[in-house]
Amino acid sequence: MVKKTSMKDIAQDVGVSIALVSYVLNNQKENRISKEVAIKIREAARRLNYQPNQIAKSLKTNKTYTLGLIVADISNPFSSSLARIIENEADKFNYTVLFGSSDENPQRLQKLIDTLLNRQVDGLIIAAPEGSEAQLTALQQRIPFVLIDRYFPNLSTNYVALDNYKSIYTGVQHLVDSGYRRIGLISFATDLFHVSERKRGYRAALKDNQITISKAWINELGQATYTGEMAKSIQELLSGKQPVNAILFASNALALHGLKQLNALGVSVPDDVAVLSFDEAEAYDLFHTPVTCIRQPLADMGQMATRLLIDIIQKNNRTTQVNLDAELIIRASTRPVQTLATAD
Amino acid sequence: MVKKTSMKDIAQDVGVSIALVSYVLNNQKENRISKEVAIKIREAARRLNYQPNQIAKSLKTNKTYTLGLIVADISNPFSSSLARIIENEADKFNYTVLFGSSDENPQRLQKLIDTLLNRQVDGLIIAAPEGSEAQLTALQQRIPFVLIDRYFPNLSTNYVALDNYKSIYTGVQHLVDSGYRRIGLISFATDLFHVSERKRGYRAALKDNQITISKAWINELGQATYTGEMAKSIQELLSGKQPVNAILFASNALALHGLKQLNALGVSVPDDVAVLSFDEAEAYDLFHTPVTCIRQPLADMGQMATRLLIDIIQKNNRTTQVNLDAELIIRASTRPVQTLATAD
Repeated sequence: MVKKTSMKDIAQDVGVSIALVSYVLNNQKENRISKEVAIKIREAARRLNYQPNQIAKSLKTNKTYTLGLIVADISNPFSSSLARIIENEADKFNYTVLFGSSDENPQRLQKLIDTLLNRQVDGLIIAAPEGSEAQLTALQQRIPFVLIDRYFPNLSTNYVALDNYKSIYTGVQHLVDSGYRRIGLISFATDLFHVSERKRGYRAALKDNQITISKAWINELGQATYTGEMAKSIQELLSGKQPVNAILFASNALALHGLKQLNALGVSVPDDVAVLSFDEAEAYDLFHTPVTCIRQPLADMGQMATRLLIDIIQKNNRTTQVNLDAELIIRASTRPVQTLATAD
Repeated sequence: MVKKTSMKDIAQDVGVSIALVSYVLNNQKENRISKEVAIKIREAARRLNYQPNQIAKSLKTNKTYTLGLIVADISNPFSSSLARIIENEADKFNYTVLFGSSDENPQRLQKLIDTLLNRQVDGLIIAAPEGSEAQLTALQQRIPFVLIDRYFPNLSTNYVALDNYKSIYTGVQHLVDSGYRRIGLISFATDLFHVSERKRGYRAALKDNQITISKAWINELGQATYTGEMAKSIQELLSGKQPVNAILFASNALALHGLKQLNALGVSVPDDVAVLSFDEAEAYDLFHTPVTCIRQPLADMGQMATRLLIDIIQKNNRTTQVNLDAELIIRASTRPVQTLATAD
């Protein structure tokens, strides 16, 4: 490893004082330094590959132009797509992004927050796990942050999220309009507000259509165990007293595993059961039937959260809360009932 | 925004000197400080939520415990899975990971390198884009780094990569053993060494089986334009003078779009054409036929690269080059020819 070039090296190379090198490279006292010397110093800095020490600079400006991003799991396509959008948007404003995965675990979130704050990030974008209200409340005294995707209705924080209630309501209404009235929900067992809102929207849409919900229609799987529970859940929905003719998956991870199990069980979509997915994944394109889904405005979400955070870092103290609308993408997996081979 | 707690605040709170606070919080001169006072100082630090300034610390130790990771595109599942593995492995050694996407562009790579070096990362893990030899050569004088997934045979750098030649050779041999002798290759038009190695392995395996390769069998698509070119490429492979009965996709992105197009064109796998994919993606599970693939040892790759980098940062100067073996996962998309409905 070659030693880093210092201002001293440049000073020795050009034959001037270190102070003079510092003035030129920091654009100070320009009127008092001859252009010729300044050019020599800059040329030597380039030739010797001089890199200013950003950490020393940061101590003076108190800004590092670094944002921290805490997602649930960077290997989930929702998280990684969002990370890429945030990265691109931050780059436009010359910010670099540091990231970490919380694994939906408040302790791991706290560890990441501490690490990122120790690295002196200017602000955080956080997809908050369940049970992290205390951490977030404490964080409000320490650094600007914007919640993304999830938020807590009782916490007055900046956030950019989806109107989950409305999005699900619209999706369920589409199913009812297509002739499906026995609609199962496969979701996660969690108190996370955005997931509860999805259940609330599902219930409200059915109720408003005078459909009595059977208890057996709502299946809430464990966040750590859902892949193992999926097959049983689907079989129960399809074979109960009131078997469903449509299934709504409350997230892309659930839909992905649900579609795999429907394949494995030899269930035909939409002839045996219609499928509606919250979120989408590129993977769905490989399923035999194009899957109707509730598409989140990912680009808007990531860009707005990034700009909002930079805005807060740079100047304002307002609390901004954004609720975005989803888009319902209607495909063959929810074909109207009367067009199905098995119409009943 | 509340002001950050300083050592001065703690000193005033406890009623001692700032020097004494500094000694206690930095575990210095322990024998000379009363336990009672030390406890009071630590208690005040906790109560006032004191956070040590890691940047100031870094100036002294010259270590930031931060690694930079440059992938091609964090939203590609290969990259995001690798990022997650590296993140987990780095965390075991108390390193945080900063990441960026190069978009397969050497200029963007250079910008990311400069940004990460300015943030004083201790080392870099890089999936290097085509044409970045000059940047990497210059980088060797500046900071420890490990190439991952891709490397340049003419550069003497640390790397952890796959033996691409051998992996493809094994896959093609499996196709031949299953009765397929007209095998098309869909790859990228690039001089990247790891992609060239895949083509070389494909050619060698066919040659060693006395199969004469038709020029029309090798389709190299543009890295930025392949999604638009895929349908035409597949149709040409299936309809030429010597139509293929098996297609080898040289990456998961190519296979993903290839499988979509096979669906759209109504081509049945493996009855009309067998499919072998380099890399795999969770998405394949939704394809009607389970897809045979060459599985890269992602966990090994990410963990070895991380440990190697930390090892180099901490003590040694050796150049280490690791070539890993892939695993061939045989599924129904390459069923032996004699079992097919359309056996010929």
